[in-house]
Amino acid sequence: MRKIYVIGIGAGDPDHLTLQAVKALNEVDVFFLLDKGTEKSDLIDLRHEILERHATGAYRLVEARDPDRDRDRAADGAAYAGAVDDWRSRRADLYARMISDELDEGTGSVGAFLVWGDPSLYDSTLAILEEILERGTVGFTYEVIPGISSVSALAAKHRIGLNRVARPVQITTGRRLAEGWPQDADDVVVMLDAHQSFRHHLADDPVIYWGAYVGTEDEILVSGRLSEVAGRIEELRAEARARKGWIMDTYLLRRD
Amino acid sequence: MRKIYVIGIGAGDPDHLTLQAVKALNEVDVFFLLDKGTEKSDLIDLRHEILERHATGAYRLVEARDPDRDRDRAADGAAYAGAVDDWRSRRADLYARMISDELDEGTGSVGAFLVWGDPSLYDSTLAILEEILERGTVGFTYEVIPGISSVSALAAKHRIGLNRVARPVQITTGRRLAEGWPQDADDVVVMLDAHQSFRHHLADDPVIYWGAYVGTEDEILVSGRLSEVAGRIEELRAEARARKGWIMDTYLLRRD
Ligand SMILES: C[S@@+](CC[C@H](N)C(=O)[O-])C[C@H]1O[C@@H](n2cnc3c(N)ncnc32)[C@H](O)[C@@H]1O
Ligand SMILES: C[S@@+](CC[C@H](N)C(=O)[O-])C[C@H]1O[C@@H](n2cnc3c(N)ncnc32)[C@H](O)[C@@H]1O
Repeated sequence: MRKIYVIGIGAGDPDHLTLQAVKALNEVDVFFLLDKGTEKSDLIDLRHEILERHATGAYRLVEARDPDRDRDRAADGAAYAGAVDDWRSRRADLYARMISDELDEGTGSVGAFLVWGDPSLYDSTLAILEEILERGTVGFTYEVIPGISSVSALAAKHRIGLNRVARPVQITTGRRLAEGWPQDADDVVVMLDAHQSFRHHLADDPVIYWGAYVGTEDEILVSGRLSEVAGRIEELRAEARARKGWIMDTYLLRRD
Repeated sequence: MRKIYVIGIGAGDPDHLTLQAVKALNEVDVFFLLDKGTEKSDLIDLRHEILERHATGAYRLVEARDPDRDRDRAADGAAYAGAVDDWRSRRADLYARMISDELDEGTGSVGAFLVWGDPSLYDSTLAILEEILERGTVGFTYEVIPGISSVSALAAKHRIGLNRVARPVQITTGRRLAEGWPQDADDVVVMLDAHQSFRHHLADDPVIYWGAYVGTEDEILVSGRLSEVAGRIEELRAEARARKGWIMDTYLLRRD
């Protein structure tokens, strides 16, 4: 039986890798590396660096271009989930083909996907593997290795807890935050925010703990009352994004 | 200047340790190990095991008994946050004394606290260090190393995402869940639940992904419709708790 590891590699610092992940890397025959387009080639570089440093056995690399998400549909809020589903199914086609072509069923070869951060947060690899198994055309077992998420990395760099004593924290998207501050949570972590949705909440004036490229050489951290630092974050963000061609940022908003 | 590392050690599996944590362990002169009472000595054992395996330099261990939380007050919902504050301040006294007695200011010795899971989730070490620094009686710098939280570990073992596509997830406590299902989140992770608060939500009949002692030899995992598995979880939980004398469990509830 083919086996697949879904390995959380951490959010940018190669030393986020766990010992469990290093052990798994060394059982792998074939690494599947999915490229999301040239802008984010730094993200692919980190994966290469991790393999060069830590995968000491013999392995093959299979690189492919991840299908593009339908950006027009994705831009329309209502159709967003639908666009993600389509995209997921095109990815399932690709992943299924790679698994059946590249992993030998008879000898039980081992494949791996290296997932950014922790595979449990805003990542579709697990859903894609489930979709492939449901189709029933390619057989395999799979195991998930947890990783340091960008949320844990952000909190560590700011040296803060995500929750306050005995209180909840919500993890949500920029899109959702733009629609309103979530009920029943005064501590909100925001990911996948292309539009600086914190701007919609200047009136509440929460404290923001913001980080971009956390854990990498380009890391930028800003914290303070939103009214005092929002402008600076927008400038830093625009400048960094223009310079590098892409940005990944996450933040915690803490309301009084 | 004294330096302190707050190191996330993962949620039970010694291989949750990151490479960054291993590097930090090897810079430490003095490890502060806080014992929360004999029932949880397995948790202390994991820390010893980690040091024996991975801290290869010369170090000292300073062990102390963590002040007991005031259990009577803590049992009363309204006074809970107050009890935690008191407890935190007694811990701050103890930690401040250990830091000033055991770490040499002149030579800049390095101390460390090994924190279960990820230091950003329901852990008071960072707040205690901040409280000590605010008092201004002992000086030090400190750095936080993120760790695999029990939440990431649980999701990996169940091979699930915490959030559904483009949707939020709330992390909360058993106490809060007993008061009501949080607004604006259909995916809820529950920690610190001594009373199986999922029982209050049988009517919604969410899917539950439950895990106890995740990542350890005693790990128990159960998932399914709450109406179908709640009874089994309660039995397994009571039996394991009686046998071991303590339990740590976490779960995700996913509502349609
Ligand atoms: C598709 S999600 C993947 C999240 C990933 N699974 C994790 O655990 O961090 C991508 C989002 O994660 C966040 N992110 C990932 N890496 C980051 C980093 N190094 N610094 C800041 N944010 C990051 C950003 O919010 C970005 O939009
Ligand atoms: C004081 S909190 C500390 C959480 C820790 N900082 C983390 O990141 O997991 C303790 C709670 O974490 C959860 N927990 C910690 N370790 C666990 C494990 N191995 N399995 C299941 N739950 C665990 C339980 O909900 C427990 O009540």
